[in-house]
Amino acid sequence: MDIKLLVKKEVAELKAYAIEEPHAAIKLDAMENPYVLPEEMRRELAYRLASVEVNRYPDPEAKRLKARLSKYLGVPAANLVLGNGSDELIGMVISAFGGSPGLIAYPTPTFSMYGIIARGLGQQVLELPLTPDFEIDFDGTLKLLMEKRPKVLFIAYPNNPTGNQFDRDKVRRLIAGTFGIVVVDEAYFSFSGDTFINELKEYPNLVVLRTLSKVGMAGLRVGIMAASVDVCREVNKVRLPYNLNSLSQAAAEYVLSKSDVIDGQVKVLIAERERLFKELSKVPGVYAYPSKTNFILFKTRESGNVYKGLMERGILIRDLNSPGPLADCLRVTVGTPEENAAFIAALREIKAG
Amino acid sequence: MDIKLLVKKEVAELKAYAIEEPHAAIKLDAMENPYVLPEEMRRELAYRLASVEVNRYPDPEAKRLKARLSKYLGVPAANLVLGNGSDELIGMVISAFGGSPGLIAYPTPTFSMYGIIARGLGQQVLELPLTPDFEIDFDGTLKLLMEKRPKVLFIAYPNNPTGNQFDRDKVRRLIAGTFGIVVVDEAYFSFSGDTFINELKEYPNLVVLRTLSKVGMAGLRVGIMAASVDVCREVNKVRLPYNLNSLSQAAAEYVLSKSDVIDGQVKVLIAERERLFKELSKVPGVYAYPSKTNFILFKTRESGNVYKGLMERGILIRDLNSPGPLADCLRVTVGTPEENAAFIAALREIKAG
Repeated sequence: MDIKLLVKKEVAELKAYAIEEPHAAIKLDAMENPYVLPEEMRRELAYRLASVEVNRYPDPEAKRLKARLSKYLGVPAANLVLGNGSDELIGMVISAFGGSPGLIAYPTPTFSMYGIIARGLGQQVLELPLTPDFEIDFDGTLKLLMEKRPKVLFIAYPNNPTGNQFDRDKVRRLIAGTFGIVVVDEAYFSFSGDTFINELKEYPNLVVLRTLSKVGMAGLRVGIMAASVDVCREVNKVRLPYNLNSLSQAAAEYVLSKSDVIDGQVKVLIAERERLFKELSKVPGVYAYPSKTNFILFKTRESGNVYKGLMERGILIRDLNSPGPLADCLRVTVGTPEENAAFIAALREIKAG
Repeated sequence: MDIKLLVKKEVAELKAYAIEEPHAAIKLDAMENPYVLPEEMRRELAYRLASVEVNRYPDPEAKRLKARLSKYLGVPAANLVLGNGSDELIGMVISAFGGSPGLIAYPTPTFSMYGIIARGLGQQVLELPLTPDFEIDFDGTLKLLMEKRPKVLFIAYPNNPTGNQFDRDKVRRLIAGTFGIVVVDEAYFSFSGDTFINELKEYPNLVVLRTLSKVGMAGLRVGIMAASVDVCREVNKVRLPYNLNSLSQAAAEYVLSKSDVIDGQVKVLIAERERLFKELSKVPGVYAYPSKTNFILFKTRESGNVYKGLMERGILIRDLNSPGPLADCLRVTVGTPEENAAFIAALREIKAG
């Protein structure tokens, strides 16, 4: 029996999401926070995790973590749904509001998982090309949205992998003007400071995504959806009841109780991003795009060789080079001051070579 | 804007999976292993979890845990896909092999998540009624399968909530005779000792599910799928890349390294199941169904009052009473000897009252 005969068409055409996993001394590829928790917090965390009864199922409502997040985000717990990372929430929104098949839209280039998850769930996708400077092409986009009426529109705000934040008013008008769910993915909110979370009451079709992955908890897989109670109710119907394991619930709850530590790390990273942007812009033959995130997109000739040269020097970044708007583009995550300095030194060496 | 206008039809019709969460001193409702880890193991586990770099993304391939599971199950790592609980794997198999919409089949009564997840993913379902003694009605089932040709057939082996194990040869003939994926869900394997995992080479359409939830790790959410490399490849395309968080990976890897502790707990629970079955069968007005799992289904008049009476005495079990084959049925999870004795004493008191 040939398994290819059994697999769903949309899935047969998919490739598995490729994650580069070469070993490197300096890892600047994945938008991770480079700082571990202070020693004292690690000890306290270990103590708390040791007391978690792993033989019992997790709290299906994650009540304690939600209460903590409610304070942290300033959103009532009833307006929150948690996911096993934002990835799972993206799938849940598509499952609840997509069709059989439905159309899922997003500007491009953007976070690749919107398209991958949509296709895996048998949906069709509508790509909305950004302008050459990675801004929303408002008129073209609105025309396409009116014509095609997608069930769900994803907008990464700020956008990954371009690093810029779309014009706020354009995004607002897309939310107001679209008949369908609009997901504003604020994964990089901590580094931009700008949010639509306070607009939830005004726009019942608005869903805001947040994550703990970029602020030091990528390993926990905690994604957060904020939306109207009506949207939350429908998404909860497709949520797997025990989707957030007990250890991650306990760990996130504890770390968020020390949000000053997170805030301090974020502050350092924002300052480093600005410094890194200036340094990058000074490297001959490099064009760096301004960023509202914890990474910087940059363009340089022979980007493949630059990527390899960095790898040879023990520095892993992300190679985004492909025909189209990201031709010759690389993406570097903001690391510690030492990591960023090592990256700039290596890059200068390669470009000088 | 009315969100009901936006939601997918299949989802609008769904109810969220209801989890009873009343507080009770003795919790015998959820097939959890009642034993926590020995003190020494908890300390070592805490130490290991403290050293997990939660600021980094999890290993997307869970290589170390898979290597451990490969030994534990006797299946090559290349034939394994891990999920955030079996629930997620059920969804992944349906996403990969379902249709737009496709038909998903399962005997009834069975684990409710097959139907809930299938509907949430926009699939249609085909229910295959069991005989009155909860066995597969082979001729009727085969006829329906030939006629309707479901994309995926789920068989819980042993079955939940009935506790019995279907005739092995019937299951084997369904796997061999079905054009489609057959998922044999062996969530309760540890308590039955019978498996189809060694038949994977013979049946390329066979998928075996296992879980760590019933053997003391329900809080970690680790589900395991074993299948041919071809099936694994397709399922991996719809797997979210970081679906298994770092803490659960580390914890499961450690606990499985002490599998003698798990095996010892399972042995005690099997002995307790047999004892509990005998005791239950002796209670006047109670009919207990034989079980190959860590729970026992039983029938008794006024089951609602029995359930309430137990709750009043601080004992939580599961009320399954509904018109049809589970009328007047309750399900009790096998607990510690003390918990089981308390349950039997309370039940006797209620029935005598």
